[in-house]
Amino acid sequence: MSESTAQLDKEDPLASLREQFHLPENTVYLDGNSLGALPKGVSSAVADVVEKQWREDLISSWNKNDWIRLPNLVGEAIAPYLGAASGQVLCSDSISVNLFKLLATALALKAPRRVILALEEDFPTDAYIAQGIAQLLGEERCELRRVAPDQLEDALNDDVAVLMLTEVNYRSGERYDMAAITEAAHAAGALVLWDLAHSAGVIPIELDRLNVDFAVGCGYKYFNGGPGAPAFLYVNHRHQSEARQPLSGWLGHRDPFAFAADYEAGSGVQRYQAGTPSIISMVALSAALRVLQLTDIAQIREKSLALTAFFMRGLASRGLLDDLECLTPEEPERRGSQVSVRYEQAWGISQALIEAKVIVDFRAPDIVRFGFAPLYNSFADAERALDILAEVLSDQRYLDERFSERPAVT
Amino acid sequence: MSESTAQLDKEDPLASLREQFHLPENTVYLDGNSLGALPKGVSSAVADVVEKQWREDLISSWNKNDWIRLPNLVGEAIAPYLGAASGQVLCSDSISVNLFKLLATALALKAPRRVILALEEDFPTDAYIAQGIAQLLGEERCELRRVAPDQLEDALNDDVAVLMLTEVNYRSGERYDMAAITEAAHAAGALVLWDLAHSAGVIPIELDRLNVDFAVGCGYKYFNGGPGAPAFLYVNHRHQSEARQPLSGWLGHRDPFAFAADYEAGSGVQRYQAGTPSIISMVALSAALRVLQLTDIAQIREKSLALTAFFMRGLASRGLLDDLECLTPEEPERRGSQVSVRYEQAWGISQALIEAKVIVDFRAPDIVRFGFAPLYNSFADAERALDILAEVLSDQRYLDERFSERPAVT
Repeated sequence: MSESTAQLDKEDPLASLREQFHLPENTVYLDGNSLGALPKGVSSAVADVVEKQWREDLISSWNKNDWIRLPNLVGEAIAPYLGAASGQVLCSDSISVNLFKLLATALALKAPRRVILALEEDFPTDAYIAQGIAQLLGEERCELRRVAPDQLEDALNDDVAVLMLTEVNYRSGERYDMAAITEAAHAAGALVLWDLAHSAGVIPIELDRLNVDFAVGCGYKYFNGGPGAPAFLYVNHRHQSEARQPLSGWLGHRDPFAFAADYEAGSGVQRYQAGTPSIISMVALSAALRVLQLTDIAQIREKSLALTAFFMRGLASRGLLDDLECLTPEEPERRGSQVSVRYEQAWGISQALIEAKVIVDFRAPDIVRFGFAPLYNSFADAERALDILAEVLSDQRYLDERFSERPAVT
Repeated sequence: MSESTAQLDKEDPLASLREQFHLPENTVYLDGNSLGALPKGVSSAVADVVEKQWREDLISSWNKNDWIRLPNLVGEAIAPYLGAASGQVLCSDSISVNLFKLLATALALKAPRRVILALEEDFPTDAYIAQGIAQLLGEERCELRRVAPDQLEDALNDDVAVLMLTEVNYRSGERYDMAAITEAAHAAGALVLWDLAHSAGVIPIELDRLNVDFAVGCGYKYFNGGPGAPAFLYVNHRHQSEARQPLSGWLGHRDPFAFAADYEAGSGVQRYQAGTPSIISMVALSAALRVLQLTDIAQIREKSLALTAFFMRGLASRGLLDDLECLTPEEPERRGSQVSVRYEQAWGISQALIEAKVIVDFRAPDIVRFGFAPLYNSFADAERALDILAEVLSDQRYLDERFSERPAVT
């Protein structure tokens, strides 16, 4: 490691937070944008919910250990990272399921408007869920329309019920201008639904201030909540009394334990609960969130930008951009917390990097993503990744036939 | 404990399975029909997924530790208890969310039929979800119609797309005749969707043989998968190629990691996956299922019936039925694995029992449920519950004002 890099780590106010995580030895983990590393406090919290709350308190834990309020409590713990005042964020289900709830809500609020406007190349599940609801409702009531980013404003016409897009694109790492886009959508009379999968926990978000209508996001990336951690959703206060969502399961009822014959929506965001939540997974997420509380999101963002800038400068200064195309914008405000490069043999590059213990991921057909998690990644990590990437490119080991097979999950 | 009761426990071929569970000391736990007790193997499985799979293998676990196939693997482990051949059961989401998927499927398959036929007094979430889909689709495409059990056959007319009902009623513990009802529904040209929440894992079920169309059920009752354990769903092979469900998230896609622009349903039951599953909670369920594999469902059922019969005989022989009305049918084939009694002061009775360490639950407005989990409940448990119940009734302590307040969860 160079001296200047060591100095950057020495001056990093978040450097000590790395100690809050279990990280694999001799490994540079740059895939926290896919699955965050394990915070040290999680194991004991999970052991407690299993070995004490479930084992000893059993059914009484729903009251005694507040399982019944856990979706709200975890939602409230997430809310500050979204710039959301109390009572608008709920931890529940998956992003896919939450998108369905919110798209249905938006279409109902805006009928007879019928278009879900989205970006081409957004994360697939967003479009898939929109296609699911469009097929269910029929084309008279719903249509998914997708456009390139530069066509977005023109596409915001009187048909659009809701604009749905991800703040940070999962492929390029590009960040869109939430303030301007939200304002444009509102000016066109549409609602806006932001997917925060690649920004929550790593970029300051101001849902309330920007008057955003709805949002979803996930617990397993920058919140480090563990594999398939429950997701979250945000419903702005001003929609809550009118909003109806069709996954009206019993825990969204005004009084679930009255076992009433007919559904009556609970107050506020509560009505966005559906069935019984996976408590063990939700407790893991709850414990993971405590690490973020040791710092603040502005510092996290500052370090994130420093790491990605360091990495992008390194790509250029080492001449790696002769081969690779960097997809991630240079302007800090247009970046998330990952750097994405394009190369025909991206699969081989990703596998050669992983073999050399630099954990990145591949996105078909030709992208390698380097995700930087400011809570545990260091500048030394970034330098090491650059070193190995330079080696892999120069000796062309990515062409080796041992990298020819792709598994089910990439 | 009486000698004859001790003898019953001594002769019980499942008695040794109690050792597979952590049970609270000096407590009779009769609420396994709400939350199953903790199997001893779960803690180490959960520690392994957190401390090894997540911590060390990180993102590679999706392949290396087969997280990507976990919903199918757990589904396959559940399938034998449902009488389902391979490829029809998936572990995913909650019962509520799975009901939505399957009701939407059934309505699409049977259009222009538009009625969801259900029983009055079935578990509320089933009706709530049907109301959610009816409100979303509009009355021209969907109506929830509810009838008393004795009106069921008459109500099966040409409008009915799908009959949805729970095999064992959560209030009364009454079990319905799945064979006869399924046949009647099919004779009327309707599909049938069974909710197995109170029967899976404790009653032999024969979905394939009875030609059932769809089913759902939960992981946290007789499968002992932990609080809010993921649920399961069953889609009969004959519907799988045609079936479409609207919660078309990315993991239900034919090739999720192709990140294709448009949704293409995966083959078979796979298309019923939506978003990323909560792996930690699913691993807990997976480990819990191993206890059931130490015996077989016929033996479980035999013991279940013996326990409930013992308890019901005890209610009668102690004269407790002068006060209490037993709601659970006497005929074995019409019982699930719980005994429910009705009394005006049911809330006070349930709290007095719990205070005396007999853990039961209350269902508003006037029911106390005694749930028997044959894997860990003994005849001694049943006798102890009868003893305490007799005391509580004779000294009327259920009237005490310390039992006047009801918490959020009952």
